[in-house]
Amino acid sequence: MNINGQAYRTIWLQDEGRSVRVIDQRLLPHEFATLELRTLEDALTAIGDMAVRGAPLIGATAAFAVALALRADPSDQALLTSVQRLVRCRPTAVNLAWAARRVASLVRPLAPKDRWPAALAEAQRICEDDVASCRAIAAHGADVLAGLAAGDGPVNVLTHCNAGWLATVDWGTALAPVYLAHQRGLPLHVWVDETRPRNQGAALTAWELGQQGVAHTVIADNAGGHLMRQGRVDVCLVGADRVASNGDVCNKIGTYLKALAAFDNQVPFYVALPHSTIDWTLGSGDLITIEERDPDEVRTITGLDAQGRRSRVQLTPNDSPTANFAFDVTPARLVTGLITERGVAAASSEGLANLYGMDALVEAVPR
Amino acid sequence: MNINGQAYRTIWLQDEGRSVRVIDQRLLPHEFATLELRTLEDALTAIGDMAVRGAPLIGATAAFAVALALRADPSDQALLTSVQRLVRCRPTAVNLAWAARRVASLVRPLAPKDRWPAALAEAQRICEDDVASCRAIAAHGADVLAGLAAGDGPVNVLTHCNAGWLATVDWGTALAPVYLAHQRGLPLHVWVDETRPRNQGAALTAWELGQQGVAHTVIADNAGGHLMRQGRVDVCLVGADRVASNGDVCNKIGTYLKALAAFDNQVPFYVALPHSTIDWTLGSGDLITIEERDPDEVRTITGLDAQGRRSRVQLTPNDSPTANFAFDVTPARLVTGLITERGVAAASSEGLANLYGMDALVEAVPR
Repeated sequence: MNINGQAYRTIWLQDEGRSVRVIDQRLLPHEFATLELRTLEDALTAIGDMAVRGAPLIGATAAFAVALALRADPSDQALLTSVQRLVRCRPTAVNLAWAARRVASLVRPLAPKDRWPAALAEAQRICEDDVASCRAIAAHGADVLAGLAAGDGPVNVLTHCNAGWLATVDWGTALAPVYLAHQRGLPLHVWVDETRPRNQGAALTAWELGQQGVAHTVIADNAGGHLMRQGRVDVCLVGADRVASNGDVCNKIGTYLKALAAFDNQVPFYVALPHSTIDWTLGSGDLITIEERDPDEVRTITGLDAQGRRSRVQLTPNDSPTANFAFDVTPARLVTGLITERGVAAASSEGLANLYGMDALVEAVPR
Repeated sequence: MNINGQAYRTIWLQDEGRSVRVIDQRLLPHEFATLELRTLEDALTAIGDMAVRGAPLIGATAAFAVALALRADPSDQALLTSVQRLVRCRPTAVNLAWAARRVASLVRPLAPKDRWPAALAEAQRICEDDVASCRAIAAHGADVLAGLAAGDGPVNVLTHCNAGWLATVDWGTALAPVYLAHQRGLPLHVWVDETRPRNQGAALTAWELGQQGVAHTVIADNAGGHLMRQGRVDVCLVGADRVASNGDVCNKIGTYLKALAAFDNQVPFYVALPHSTIDWTLGSGDLITIEERDPDEVRTITGLDAQGRRSRVQLTPNDSPTANFAFDVTPARLVTGLITERGVAAASSEGLANLYGMDALVEAVPR
């Protein structure tokens, strides 16, 4: 996708594979800068501090991180340690573990000297697969959006958090259909939940929609229910950090509240995701570990001050504790459909099995 | 209630009734300061800019504002103009119109020279009535909270926005039962929704709970659904800006989303309000005018910077529009009960009629 009219991905190799460069998403929308990752430590910090975030993108970053670790030390022990540390770094998004394990499985049988180049090639394949998946999600989702067009006005989409191209290698998950439909000339308008506490909606989704020229309005997370009661939302479209095999969706905190409002107002609620986000080993979303992050992310917020400097301000009284739950689970019963690279599935074991069949059985084998 | 151990109300007369002093709620929680209102203009600015806010408190302020207007000019025209300007100042909370009209009805038959003192006395009666109503709400609501106590842990209350003593003259509506139950020794913990965009939860509710020594935790508005799914909320307790005669509740934007989550998880959802918040002329919440405020309230936020100065920071990209809906409507079907000064009513025409009977009929006569 474009930044100031120039095509970018969120992650790319440089220096003949000796390092990886990513967009530093902590600085957006007020500053565009990139960050070099040369070591496993660099990658762990980038993932933990959310310089890179979004389930598919942290998967891609984790794959490169295993390669960077093996370049420094190609031993079995280094391989094991790197995967373990990555998996622990952020517990909720399953793509991270999926990608790190995919690279590890491939390189484990190889001689140490062959591991780094093989890991690097596999990480690149993961990136290309992600782009292809997101492009296919775009196509299936754009058809859904086109089907909702009626009358003269735009199709009004409500989205939560950032499941745009910044959350993936390119295209995005929830926003991929929006971009493709926009390219095809469908009139669209996106209601962007600001998505406290980290404001990925206000900071990232609004910025990337603006860069691609898609009409949008940023709203407080509290506003979506009112808009749906007023008939001002035609469809909710969000991403996912992990989808259980029964169709339960774990996504950014607050997603469940929007799904309830959509259900109460007969607004279709779709979740867009690549296969790497499905956890075939979990039969229910209630089994997913919900990350609790630093309470300071609720206590404070960062923005641009009157002098145009990035500034962090404290919102709460000094003595008031805060708590920071990063994700919630939306039961499958509230989800109209799962938009995957293979098509739109019902949010159920049957729906997913229809699309993934034997692949699902293989992935579900406990490790 | 107490500020640094000293008892305060939110509004009081000074200078032999020639001016009114209020707590400037825009500066909390980081600074405590008061503001003098000497004229109708002062009062309109204080209400419009939300130096005073909360349905019962803007009612009390409006009553004093009519008195201040009549002190400057006791004519019929001045009386009419003052009521009209006050009613238009903030359209959603019905208490404002109710209080301004109550004062106007009383002073209209009087000779001009008698109007100011009579208006002042009536405004003071409105304040005393509000305190008595809130104290009665405290008693009825504290019984509800006591009935939810089970096992060793505290009763976990989730509240949205600020319906504490700062939203009234004293005691509060939703928080009045919390304060009384706390005084009676019931172990309590309050989950405080920060309540974007103006963060009345993070700024005001957290501050006043802290000042009274009530255990609490500030959370993002997105978190309540997750907490309810996890069984970590025993009851939701919120205030109201206007309640229709069928029991539909108009309250701060986002209330509806919490009511949906409470209903989905069988968590009781109570709304606390004095009679002045009931609009007997409206048969449905869908008829209530929802205020849209300055989009800058979503675009920016104010907090304390690293140097301890109040600073406003911009959260969104320069070119992204924002929208700011101030209230939403929660259908009566999602409300467990309305806690009023006369007791707990079902959220329905019958429930309210049982408590208010003939009073309701008189109030419902169109003006």
